[in-house]
Amino acid sequence: MNEETRRKLATVSTATLTTVLFKRGYRNLFLQGVLPLNPGAARMVGPAFTLRTIPAREDLDGLDAFKDPEHPQRKGVETCPPGAVFVIDSRGDARAASAGGILVTRLMRRGVAGIVTDGGFRDSPEIAAMDMPAYHSRPSAPTNLILHHCIDLNLPIACGGVPVFPGDIMVGDGEGVVVIPAGIADDVAKEGFEQTIYEDFVLERVAAGHAIRGLYPMTDPANREVFSAWRAEKGR
Amino acid sequence: MNEETRRKLATVSTATLTTVLFKRGYRNLFLQGVLPLNPGAARMVGPAFTLRTIPAREDLDGLDAFKDPEHPQRKGVETCPPGAVFVIDSRGDARAASAGGILVTRLMRRGVAGIVTDGGFRDSPEIAAMDMPAYHSRPSAPTNLILHHCIDLNLPIACGGVPVFPGDIMVGDGEGVVVIPAGIADDVAKEGFEQTIYEDFVLERVAAGHAIRGLYPMTDPANREVFSAWRAEKGR
Amino acid sequence: MNEETRRKLATVSTATLTTVLFKRGYRNLFLQGVLPLNPGAARMVGPAFTLRTIPAREDLDGLDAFKDPEHPQRKGVETCPPGAVFVIDSRGDARAASAGGILVTRLMRRGVAGIVTDGGFRDSPEIAAMDMPAYHSRPSAPTNLILHHCIDLNLPIACGGVPVFPGDIMVGDGEGVVVIPAGIADDVAKEGFEQTIYEDFVLERVAAGHAIRGLYPMTDPANREVFSAWRAEKGR
Amino acid sequence: MNEETRRKLATVSTATLTTVLFKRGYRNLFLQGVLPLNPGAARMVGPAFTLRTIPAREDLDGLDAFKDPEHPQRKGVETCPPGAVFVIDSRGDARAASAGGILVTRLMRRGVAGIVTDGGFRDSPEIAAMDMPAYHSRPSAPTNLILHHCIDLNLPIACGGVPVFPGDIMVGDGEGVVVIPAGIADDVAKEGFEQTIYEDFVLERVAAGHAIRGLYPMTDPANREVFSAWRAEKGR
Amino acid sequence: MNEETRRKLATVSTATLTTVLFKRGYRNLFLQGVLPLNPGAARMVGPAFTLRTIPAREDLDGLDAFKDPEHPQRKGVETCPPGAVFVIDSRGDARAASAGGILVTRLMRRGVAGIVTDGGFRDSPEIAAMDMPAYHSRPSAPTNLILHHCIDLNLPIACGGVPVFPGDIMVGDGEGVVVIPAGIADDVAKEGFEQTIYEDFVLERVAAGHAIRGLYPMTDPANREVFSAWRAEKGR
Amino acid sequence: MNEETRRKLATVSTATLTTVLFKRGYRNLFLQGVLPLNPGAARMVGPAFTLRTIPAREDLDGLDAFKDPEHPQRKGVETCPPGAVFVIDSRGDARAASAGGILVTRLMRRGVAGIVTDGGFRDSPEIAAMDMPAYHSRPSAPTNLILHHCIDLNLPIACGGVPVFPGDIMVGDGEGVVVIPAGIADDVAKEGFEQTIYEDFVLERVAAGHAIRGLYPMTDPANREVFSAWRAEKGR
Repeated sequence: MNEETRRKLATVSTATLTTVLFKRGYRNLFLQGVLPLNPGAARMVGPAFTLRTIPAREDLDGLDAFKDPEHPQRKGVETCPPGAVFVIDSRGDARAASAGGILVTRLMRRGVAGIVTDGGFRDSPEIAAMDMPAYHSRPSAPTNLILHHCIDLNLPIACGGVPVFPGDIMVGDGEGVVVIPAGIADDVAKEGFEQTIYEDFVLERVAAGHAIRGLYPMTDPANREVFSAWRAEKGR
Repeated sequence: MNEETRRKLATVSTATLTTVLFKRGYRNLFLQGVLPLNPGAARMVGPAFTLRTIPAREDLDGLDAFKDPEHPQRKGVETCPPGAVFVIDSRGDARAASAGGILVTRLMRRGVAGIVTDGGFRDSPEIAAMDMPAYHSRPSAPTNLILHHCIDLNLPIACGGVPVFPGDIMVGDGEGVVVIPAGIADDVAKEGFEQTIYEDFVLERVAAGHAIRGLYPMTDPANREVFSAWRAEKGR
Repeated sequence: MNEETRRKLATVSTATLTTVLFKRGYRNLFLQGVLPLNPGAARMVGPAFTLRTIPAREDLDGLDAFKDPEHPQRKGVETCPPGAVFVIDSRGDARAASAGGILVTRLMRRGVAGIVTDGGFRDSPEIAAMDMPAYHSRPSAPTNLILHHCIDLNLPIACGGVPVFPGDIMVGDGEGVVVIPAGIADDVAKEGFEQTIYEDFVLERVAAGHAIRGLYPMTDPANREVFSAWRAEKGR
Repeated sequence: MNEETRRKLATVSTATLTTVLFKRGYRNLFLQGVLPLNPGAARMVGPAFTLRTIPAREDLDGLDAFKDPEHPQRKGVETCPPGAVFVIDSRGDARAASAGGILVTRLMRRGVAGIVTDGGFRDSPEIAAMDMPAYHSRPSAPTNLILHHCIDLNLPIACGGVPVFPGDIMVGDGEGVVVIPAGIADDVAKEGFEQTIYEDFVLERVAAGHAIRGLYPMTDPANREVFSAWRAEKGR
Repeated sequence: MNEETRRKLATVSTATLTTVLFKRGYRNLFLQGVLPLNPGAARMVGPAFTLRTIPAREDLDGLDAFKDPEHPQRKGVETCPPGAVFVIDSRGDARAASAGGILVTRLMRRGVAGIVTDGGFRDSPEIAAMDMPAYHSRPSAPTNLILHHCIDLNLPIACGGVPVFPGDIMVGDGEGVVVIPAGIADDVAKEGFEQTIYEDFVLERVAAGHAIRGLYPMTDPANREVFSAWRAEKGR
Repeated sequence: MNEETRRKLATVSTATLTTVLFKRGYRNLFLQGVLPLNPGAARMVGPAFTLRTIPAREDLDGLDAFKDPEHPQRKGVETCPPGAVFVIDSRGDARAASAGGILVTRLMRRGVAGIVTDGGFRDSPEIAAMDMPAYHSRPSAPTNLILHHCIDLNLPIACGGVPVFPGDIMVGDGEGVVVIPAGIADDVAKEGFEQTIYEDFVLERVAAGHAIRGLYPMTDPANREVFSAWRAEKGR
């Protein structure tokens, strides 16, 4: 991901991105049931670094499991690159935690761009107060050992019913998280950036009392001119 | 709906209204799983104007669909009467949006009293900041074209597991939305208004340390007098 | 529950408690899908006082049911001991209310420590503003008579998929509610209190940039000394 | 339950019984999601004998639990009266068994009229081959100790989302199970028996090519006479 | 639908049809959760005749509702054309019946090609024994009045999460039901018919021990010749 | 897996195996919601060979995907060892097929011991008639390309909410499927085999009219002798 793409994506909503992706034939890249834990935090943009889990097994997932420095969750927290987004496949199961406050703090301190799970976080009130974008389905106090066996890092996974390949660009805002396949991220960023300008224009016009017809989508060519003028005026 | 009914309903909680409706034999008029997106907004009261959807079909629901001025969603947004509530049957499916910020802005600008769906809204952070009562099940960025084919306006629909006939009175507060069949709205408003006064009295008494027995419901006739005095004092 | 246990539990998070319980072989004592209605309220600690419901039946659950002073919900509200937590088995069904603002006010006034249901509360905006810890699954306006027949008090129940025996210690924080079997409450409180101190130390270290390995869990003996020094310094 | 009531109910379908109950204002007495395991077995009629469960707890529900002769499941199997129906409140959870082949065999041998759970049975292929009406939601091999703590006998329970009071009459056929409140069983049996005769008549007419209008419900008085004649001819 | 299309579709499985539809961009035309009640009955092919329901309301849905000859369910049963498939939008709710044995008998007697609901049928054991293809989600004894208000006929509906327009071709087999948009039915029938021949050939080859590679899909041109010879030999 | 283990496991029910596993601390090794498609087929025993899927993506999962000989599903079908069980992680999603009749036929022909998915099979009526044990959640006609992207072979997976490691022993009967961790399979087989003998004895006794107390579990030492005699007599 080049820096311009990151910069642009940081200004485009997940709603607009799903439309840009839909134009390219993608119907299922918004994570279902995954909500922002701290909607006020900075927007999230970064390539996916993935952790996969399978259901826990009692003989493998006792408290001692965490003593192993190769435990994938612990290893992932230390190796996820700064700027990346840590994405956990929790099989949509929030009955036990995917991670907690200490690990999220470590990731934040290491410069990771955000954390996403389709399960739940423990210590969620603390995480909600952090400056680190975090997305989950609901608060979940129980230790992950009860339900989740962390199995490997950086394989393609499912999260929120969506395919996530390592390196795909994760974008999060106050509504949720969308995945952009790595190969089209620059292109999607460009179009999303332009579409955002147009939608800002539309919203301003509609707020001023204009009807939607002809404007959204722009089917009345007269609007093209008005838009150009508006854009020039706004310097966008 | 006459103006007195509207005025009265604006002071009665949905909880109280479900009790008043239960007395008349109605057990299922509170929308299930439909939550306020902006609990701080003014309360919502108005007759239902309905939009019905069925699942999308790829050949009918491409981006060009919105170019048709007769597209029911777009037409509905322009024709829903001021003071009415725009109610969308999204079949309880929030995996794609029912509507987004631009359409909600247009409805608000046109004087519509509120918007309700049993699906989800996109641009939900923006809508949450608007002064327009909006109710949905959860944020949903994906464009509605992915899942919802808008099919017709102002037919009876299901919303939140509840029957909604055009013209039924929709009342929303910080808890959710209740539907009052059109024919009994005046009567329900009157009784709900009276019951609210009594419940305010009860709450004040209970907060002051009185037991519930005999008071709620009022089975001790002594309370009748106390209530009359209280009511006179409060001028209600 | 002795006073020291209460005091200690008031400082331990539900996340930490589930780990302490997991060490003792308990995997399922965090209430699933039960969320704080007023996360800002004081933390909740107290022995369970239980109310059980079964589905309503039309001939038993008319509005007159509340006129009976022996109605279990009403009787429970007047007899739940100060300091206890009122726990309602609503069979996970939030389509009608488990209780409302007036009853919760009465419980609060009577000195009850909190209220928990795996259904929903009505008058939830009012309850959210009270100083009484309240936990439920979602707002629910409809009167409980529609779905819930209150049947008995102080029997063992299910709540949030968890067994709750009268007298078990309920602990709630901003994340949810955990049940501690009565017989091990003192022991769990002690260990949880100690573990909280260690986790506070870890969090401070991690926030300062230290890696997790060797620290959480403490597998590097060097950390033991640092921790002792930190603890001495903090007077904990 | 008198013998005539039992005899009559043995000929009335659960579908017809729900209609008879609906006429009396009952809307929720058919067990939801509870299916016949052996549809070919004799129909089931008998008063409810109930077993209640709550979620299991690891310290209470080890294999030794069954060594206690007072274990409610084992005690229930030995004390459920012949002719009664053994009804288990499994909280709708079929992830572990409610009972298995050996206990069902014992109940059958003791003359119990049937067994019902809103969870699942283990050894379900064996039970499916028995001559004992059995109803559950799906096969479930895991021992009940994993999820279900049997807590008491013969209290009112929930089963399949329906209230079941000990002594209520349980009726099962190839479609499922309906609960008839004890106090109205004779009356419901009489009306259901009569309605069955009429529906048999209607079905014969419709199969012979008659339209439904005027016949079902009987709004055309001409049909009354035809029915009387048919009934006389059939000796019913 | 011309007769050749009907004849061809009667030999193509719903599995094959979903593939043919997928080639044309359709991803969601197989009814989800709708199962054959009588898998042995003749396959079902016919244009959709639709009945729509919304949730019931107590004042509208008493037993007298059926006395109205214009009640949409009753009217639909008498007006659905022979050869058509009666499709009911039950909003996926099987807690009360969509229809029962008498109505299904009437439809069968009138020459209707099949009946489909995303709810449940009552009298399901009787229907299962009929010679009329019937599809539902699970048996459901309660009268439809409890939950379903029949509202109109022959509008586009949702069924099993799929859009069904009146006149679309419904095809059912032992696996379930697929909807073919009316405009492409002839084309889909032709391709499905051809594909079935090829799949029969493949299945025969695979049963005889051939590997799948190169054969399914046919990427090895050598197979083309073998297939031609097989086809000639079989006269297909 | 040695041959004696295979032979023994072929006589032990999944119900008995869950009890043997529970004794060893395993609570979650029975696949939830995975049912036999052909209950009459020979019992299934064999080591797991796994296929993992993630959600499909439109640019990767067109019909051409199957032309790639390295497509994991196709490759798996050709490389799964005879005697093994082909286990598919379909993320519990049966809205599209996990596999169909042709692939299952190929697996059967290659001597594979069975096939298991937590999704659904297409061509399910054909598979139900095969002599190959097959387990799924429900019939599902749509091609897997719509929802499932096959991603890799022989990694640990989740199936039916249970961890499955390649080489774990899968055992299926008419009730469902249980997973035995590879390292304890011989031990579990031995104990299960013995327990089956005892349970057969118990069942015979209970069928003959004996009470369960003292017999199941065997707490009355007198039964030990009777059992020994029975065993000697039966030559087991």
